[in-house]
Amino acid sequence: MTKTDDNLAVILRQRPEGLPNPDDFALESRPLGSRSPGQVRCETLYLSLDPYMRSVIAGNHLGHGIDPGEVIPGEVIARVSESDDPNWPVGIAVRCQGGWQQLSDHAPEALSRVPTGLSRPSLALSILGMPGLTAWAGIVDLAKVGEGEVVVIPAAVGGVGAMAAQLSKRAGATTIAITSGSEKCRIAIEELGYDHCIDRNEDDLAEALSAISPQGVSVYFDLVGDPILTTVAQQLSIGGRVVLCGLIKDYNGDHKTTGPHPGLWITKRATVSGLVVYDYEPQRGAFEEEFVPLAEAGKLVGNEEMHDGLETAPEAFCQLMRGRNHGKVVVRVGE
Amino acid sequence: MTKTDDNLAVILRQRPEGLPNPDDFALESRPLGSRSPGQVRCETLYLSLDPYMRSVIAGNHLGHGIDPGEVIPGEVIARVSESDDPNWPVGIAVRCQGGWQQLSDHAPEALSRVPTGLSRPSLALSILGMPGLTAWAGIVDLAKVGEGEVVVIPAAVGGVGAMAAQLSKRAGATTIAITSGSEKCRIAIEELGYDHCIDRNEDDLAEALSAISPQGVSVYFDLVGDPILTTVAQQLSIGGRVVLCGLIKDYNGDHKTTGPHPGLWITKRATVSGLVVYDYEPQRGAFEEEFVPLAEAGKLVGNEEMHDGLETAPEAFCQLMRGRNHGKVVVRVGE
Repeated sequence: MTKTDDNLAVILRQRPEGLPNPDDFALESRPLGSRSPGQVRCETLYLSLDPYMRSVIAGNHLGHGIDPGEVIPGEVIARVSESDDPNWPVGIAVRCQGGWQQLSDHAPEALSRVPTGLSRPSLALSILGMPGLTAWAGIVDLAKVGEGEVVVIPAAVGGVGAMAAQLSKRAGATTIAITSGSEKCRIAIEELGYDHCIDRNEDDLAEALSAISPQGVSVYFDLVGDPILTTVAQQLSIGGRVVLCGLIKDYNGDHKTTGPHPGLWITKRATVSGLVVYDYEPQRGAFEEEFVPLAEAGKLVGNEEMHDGLETAPEAFCQLMRGRNHGKVVVRVGE
Repeated sequence: MTKTDDNLAVILRQRPEGLPNPDDFALESRPLGSRSPGQVRCETLYLSLDPYMRSVIAGNHLGHGIDPGEVIPGEVIARVSESDDPNWPVGIAVRCQGGWQQLSDHAPEALSRVPTGLSRPSLALSILGMPGLTAWAGIVDLAKVGEGEVVVIPAAVGGVGAMAAQLSKRAGATTIAITSGSEKCRIAIEELGYDHCIDRNEDDLAEALSAISPQGVSVYFDLVGDPILTTVAQQLSIGGRVVLCGLIKDYNGDHKTTGPHPGLWITKRATVSGLVVYDYEPQRGAFEEEFVPLAEAGKLVGNEEMHDGLETAPEAFCQLMRGRNHGKVVVRVGE
């Protein structure tokens, strides 16, 4: 239990050049002061680490970002520790944008409830968190994956990829993972239920893809940008869909995705959609209605890579940005 | 009236390098021989010239093309001159892939009827031909243009552009033409009913676009590729749609469109669709049901640039590929 006047936080020390390093971050004690009337104080239990944060700390995430000296933002599961609002009583678990710190104050409308029937509350950050909602938006709402289709997912064992694979399987599709290394391929197939895995350390992507699916690719859920984007797009089947959702390579600033020639989209009669998960917050209700029961029944795999202690967040994030994670990266901050 | 043993045809003499020139083509007399049983002989009345033909003669139009020595293909309005099929009697007007020649033989299933109430049969090549069907596919089926939206159309006074503008206006949208030269801008506004025109000879495209529509662009119907594609895409409003339909700059082989960075599609939550009009042949019935009555009532403007005589086709096509046409290019071949 942390005292309210001793709030540990991770701040941005300097903007990273290229891949981030742990010394781009600093752990500081930042007393929080007293809570404003009407606000709810929350004590972070679990912190979600996600690739989009790389563009936030670069200062250019969808037109906003942070500057050095500021606390890194991020989605968390927290416990209400101080509140006058009967709708948000002390002790309940909530999801909020708590950031990389132990304590944070929020207006009640910025909080959402965490389902109580989960085997562990951190699942609300993976299956039911931003990764789950992102996968749902891409696979169900935009790509409308259907029976018998072929879905290709890069960053296949990450938070979004893991959920995208499970939603695609539930829709009756064949799933192909793209990842790096035999351990991740094992996770993809054995733990996440992918039908096939292409190991970029071993396989030529274009060759492997056409060997696995000579009929082409129905849906590509892009989380990484080029060169994978262009290679997979060339194997789209007629009428294929591409959901553009992430550009992990570009986030590090050492790479510039160009994407395929527009003539390829014409030839393939492709539909390419840009996805920003924030747009789907109003549909979170519909999403949860469908997936909370599945999560509570243990029918969705939340493949979390759990780290212990706020001080581990910088190193865990730097590994994530190098693609070295083996699942959805979560940091346990409190108990 | 041409004798059947004296069929004048335009053949490809050599593949053009870059922009085509008239001497890449040759006019030849190619006796047609006698008609096979079951075939219908057609005498060309009007020939449609369209930019996609540039990639056909380059040998790479959607995976097919022609070689030097072959007759240039193309859509025509023709009159049946020999037939044993009571469904396709001598004297009726039909639409078919007659090519750049006076006479051609077809299986009955390759023919379609031309509506009889048109003020002139050539309208079946513009308003009701491939340009009309293309515009319908892009504006109505893919982009689903609606009331109050802002639609931007390059190659604005060409066959597809003219129809796209009229369909957008009928849907209640504001239309912005992009074209080159004051005469074309006059045609766009006065004859085709565009709300605004940007003259690329005079205006900076990005500045003009944001001055006309500070709220951004709802739909961009791309017929030309870069640099216009990227410039307009940068001014898409959130949720904007782009229909990719043509790459006129690239067809000449002296330019390579790259298109915007995929991150732009994400930021704009854009939907980008590739359109190939051949896919819409099965829907031609629905298209005609809606537009034949409008065409017959004179409610659609068919802005044709008419040339006289098959021998004028090469020069007219070369001018088209230089963007010097002032409407949908049609060649009158017979009477």
